[in-house]
Amino acid sequence: MEEIDVNALLIGGKSENGELFKSLLSHLIDEHLGWRQNYMPQDPPLISPTEQASPVFQQTVQRLKTVMEELSVRMRKDSVPWESARYWGHMNSETLIPALLGYYFGMLWNENNVSYEGSPAASLLEEEVGRDFAKLFSFPNGWGHICADGSIANLEALWYARNVKSLPLAMKEVKPELVAGKSDWELLNMPIEKIIDLMSSLSEVDLDLVKRKSARSGKRIEDLGKWIIPATKHYSWLKAADITGVGIDQVIMIPVDDHYRMKIDVLEKTIEDLSAQKMPILGVVGVVGTTEEGAIDHIDKICALRKSFAKKGINFYLHADCAYGGYARSIILDSNYDVIPYADLEHELRENKVFQDLSNTISKDDYESLKALSEVDSITVDPHKMGYVPYTAGGIVIRDERMRNAISYFASYVFDKTIDPPVQIGPYILEGSKAGAAAAAVWAAHRVLPLNITGYGRIIGRSMEGARNFYKFMSELEVEVEGKKIKSHTIYYPDFNMVDWVFNVEGNTDLKVMNELNQNFFIQTSIYSGMPYLKPILTSHTDFAKGEYGDSCLDFIRKIGITSPWDSSSHLTTLRASTMNLMMYDAQSFASYEVKLKEAIKKVLKPCLKNEK
Amino acid sequence: MEEIDVNALLIGGKSENGELFKSLLSHLIDEHLGWRQNYMPQDPPLISPTEQASPVFQQTVQRLKTVMEELSVRMRKDSVPWESARYWGHMNSETLIPALLGYYFGMLWNENNVSYEGSPAASLLEEEVGRDFAKLFSFPNGWGHICADGSIANLEALWYARNVKSLPLAMKEVKPELVAGKSDWELLNMPIEKIIDLMSSLSEVDLDLVKRKSARSGKRIEDLGKWIIPATKHYSWLKAADITGVGIDQVIMIPVDDHYRMKIDVLEKTIEDLSAQKMPILGVVGVVGTTEEGAIDHIDKICALRKSFAKKGINFYLHADCAYGGYARSIILDSNYDVIPYADLEHELRENKVFQDLSNTISKDDYESLKALSEVDSITVDPHKMGYVPYTAGGIVIRDERMRNAISYFASYVFDKTIDPPVQIGPYILEGSKAGAAAAAVWAAHRVLPLNITGYGRIIGRSMEGARNFYKFMSELEVEVEGKKIKSHTIYYPDFNMVDWVFNVEGNTDLKVMNELNQNFFIQTSIYSGMPYLKPILTSHTDFAKGEYGDSCLDFIRKIGITSPWDSSSHLTTLRASTMNLMMYDAQSFASYEVKLKEAIKKVLKPCLKNEK
Repeated sequence: MEEIDVNALLIGGKSENGELFKSLLSHLIDEHLGWRQNYMPQDPPLISPTEQASPVFQQTVQRLKTVMEELSVRMRKDSVPWESARYWGHMNSETLIPALLGYYFGMLWNENNVSYEGSPAASLLEEEVGRDFAKLFSFPNGWGHICADGSIANLEALWYARNVKSLPLAMKEVKPELVAGKSDWELLNMPIEKIIDLMSSLSEVDLDLVKRKSARSGKRIEDLGKWIIPATKHYSWLKAADITGVGIDQVIMIPVDDHYRMKIDVLEKTIEDLSAQKMPILGVVGVVGTTEEGAIDHIDKICALRKSFAKKGINFYLHADCAYGGYARSIILDSNYDVIPYADLEHELRENKVFQDLSNTISKDDYESLKALSEVDSITVDPHKMGYVPYTAGGIVIRDERMRNAISYFASYVFDKTIDPPVQIGPYILEGSKAGAAAAAVWAAHRVLPLNITGYGRIIGRSMEGARNFYKFMSELEVEVEGKKIKSHTIYYPDFNMVDWVFNVEGNTDLKVMNELNQNFFIQTSIYSGMPYLKPILTSHTDFAKGEYGDSCLDFIRKIGITSPWDSSSHLTTLRASTMNLMMYDAQSFASYEVKLKEAIKKVLKPCLKNEK
Repeated sequence: MEEIDVNALLIGGKSENGELFKSLLSHLIDEHLGWRQNYMPQDPPLISPTEQASPVFQQTVQRLKTVMEELSVRMRKDSVPWESARYWGHMNSETLIPALLGYYFGMLWNENNVSYEGSPAASLLEEEVGRDFAKLFSFPNGWGHICADGSIANLEALWYARNVKSLPLAMKEVKPELVAGKSDWELLNMPIEKIIDLMSSLSEVDLDLVKRKSARSGKRIEDLGKWIIPATKHYSWLKAADITGVGIDQVIMIPVDDHYRMKIDVLEKTIEDLSAQKMPILGVVGVVGTTEEGAIDHIDKICALRKSFAKKGINFYLHADCAYGGYARSIILDSNYDVIPYADLEHELRENKVFQDLSNTISKDDYESLKALSEVDSITVDPHKMGYVPYTAGGIVIRDERMRNAISYFASYVFDKTIDPPVQIGPYILEGSKAGAAAAAVWAAHRVLPLNITGYGRIIGRSMEGARNFYKFMSELEVEVEGKKIKSHTIYYPDFNMVDWVFNVEGNTDLKVMNELNQNFFIQTSIYSGMPYLKPILTSHTDFAKGEYGDSCLDFIRKIGITSPWDSSSHLTTLRASTMNLMMYDAQSFASYEVKLKEAIKKVLKPCLKNEK
């Protein structure tokens, strides 16, 4: 087994590998420049040295330099040092050198993966990335692609669900013999695999006719039923329901437990009640790595529920929103992309040096959730999050490649049906033009770091371990500021790599006072109080409102001594760190920052107590 | 007036400015590396020189190099030399140095413009780009942003149309006093400005209630009526109708004339007929720069129609799909972004050296269309097309910033309503995460080249003039191959920069034979017959099927002597060149390539005649 030093794949918080990055980039750019020069080498250049020396040319270069200098000043003035061990906030970080090089290099060729003709090289790279995603989730017949971002992937997933689930009704109109004897209720509850099988049995002409009568027509969308999501939902789900015409009226939110995971018993009861009312379920979404807590829903239990409802003739689409957490599945895959049995996991994690301290490993619950992802219908997974690829590179993968035909469109100028290109992405996606460069970036990152325990597993391990170090630190932190003792309280042990915590003055029992302190802390450690570059620690924040989160944080606030009432207008303001930093996994490195962080926190808390702005 | 030499802004087909590009890039990267190093300079590096010298680190670097070499080989093997004067095909080209540098530099900071906190520098750049777009289309109260691509921009536009047009019905439910006395027909025909005014008069709470009952709810979408597009439509319009739940059943296509522009009389008749049947019009789309012909619809006449229908109480949303042609409006704007009166245009074009030969200028028709864009409700405009920015950078701009509230969503973890950031993009767009780097790229290109006659006007001029040179060349071309005389026939004089043509053997009257020849020519000059790098000329093709295009090409095929019947199964296969090349405007440069192109065409036609593969 080849060892990989992740440190060689990062520019580094102190630009430690800056020269390495530059020399690799320079080499790649030269290869591109040589290629341009040598296409039909007999063709002479059209920009002459004489012109290059002319005043207007030189003046234009000065103009260009002036603009780039302004850009540089503006970026340096306001940007946030994500790569520093002092950054504990949003899902932002430095990115992997192979991904950066791939993006840069790919951009020089400016391929457009919407069609094979526009991207003969990069389309193939994207197809391989799609296969990588399929391997990551153990979809032997899967298909995936890169998309703009997770919101678009979620939107595409709902589009899939809506159109696939509507096909049986369309078949009844166009080819009634296919679904003879079935009631509308049965048609609206046909298992997804069964629908795909039926769709695949149609001739091309019949398929087009059926599609024409599917939800694509705009008809009977409301009949498809409810779209069920957890209360921790990303707001993109409401947007997607709006955009697709499914409608936010059809969205049902399931409350979450004190670990911010969807309550499975409530989900079950909800599906039962709806079915009893003859209300179909369009689909259910489970989340792996919620945006504000990094929580991992019980995907295994949702899959088990789906199976048990199937026996009762209740079937729904199942999507996993793994925009943030999808790459985490790499730590449970061996080098052949087979799921590692739980009994062997510890051994494999040790062999592959995924954690320094194995007590930082994932829980059995989370292992089971990740494992069960192979059973869902589609998955959102964003390389520009835990894939450490620069923006933008989102992703989606479907379990059954044949499902693509439920949403496909062909345009004559790019998709000539008489030609059979080796790969065609455009007809099967929500977007149109898309960067070949993004495919090159993700491809390069995946080739250097396979999506299993030998590659990305190490990245995931570092990030999780960093979060656990930070969790421990934040669970124990106590500082004295202006004679007041302030304690930090973490809200839950992280499923993944996200830590939420609050500061409270010892003895304070008032929620409003505590919220104000944490809101102030956030302001003081973010752009909202001035240049991030000057701040010794940086964070993000979020808000658990009773209206959305119910009582999931009530035990916590009571435990830390808050006695204020928790009613419909209540909310808890928390600080929030996505620990994407890849250096803080190391106990020694973390220790070397503990004093710095503690000092920084003390310094920041001072004006917060005084409520200074 | 500052002169700009566009040649200084391109790497060049022969990498003439390769060293310039590399030195500017190196400088920018150094500025970034220094910034990282100097954030809290007291913090020591975490990757040591000892580690960098270690075998595992070095082994990882070798692994990285191996992957990048494979990427380089694959890109060099299959990619297409867009930048060459031998490329006459898809909408692909080399891109502007400022855009490349902006993208590269921006990517190092990895900002996410979905929220201000995730992109304190780049959000502001995007806001400026949005204002640039607003200036380009003379929208004093406009607002715009970058999006993934034109399909997403079109989808967002239809989402806008659907949600805005549904507001009056929602108001009737929630605040009936606002629309007292109005029938449903009147509510469905309320002018867009009036709807926006009413929406803006609502309190935040009422607005939320009204939005909740708008099309966002999923209800009554079908009642909103028909979405009218030209037959030259981009396929993204069908997709958008599908995705938004408006439904492709609601899409009406208007036939086009022999210039591939929407027939205004048919549009008028269609609206009249629908109105007579009490069928509302959700909206109308005009296209500026159709995908297969570069045609420019009569936007001025569509706007005039809208005004005249408004007088009869018929009102609809009006979108202009300028994904391809939007930047062309820069040639009719003076340095203050004011529209140049037509009488002064020639003078200004000469002063700004936009064309070498002023007979290559735009027609009065097209001038009027471009001018009238200031009257539409929203516009798609893609920097990654005629903005010469690398993929991906699409764009959309709306005439009235207040319209944003019809589609907005707020998420607590990024959009804290108690904080008032200087700019906020995420709540008002269809997508989620988005690259700050794309904003940096477009911003840099726009700063170097303003969106008026002094900047992008010159780019547009070069491209149009190159197309006219190619048009002339292709209109006159005759070659002899294996004793047969083959003539080239251009199909229309280009509105913008796209040339469609066919080859035909002299004396051939059979459409099928001619189609086969051109299909073969396409295959021989594309990836479908092997490595593009080895081909002396490269093209793309398209297909005018009677089913979609009606009789728009019938006069043409008769004129060139085709006598085959033109019936419902007929189609014309044409070759198609988006002349994005920025060097072939120059008469002398073009002349120097004429012999090369003629030789290349002869060489390619030979196997085509024999029907070799």
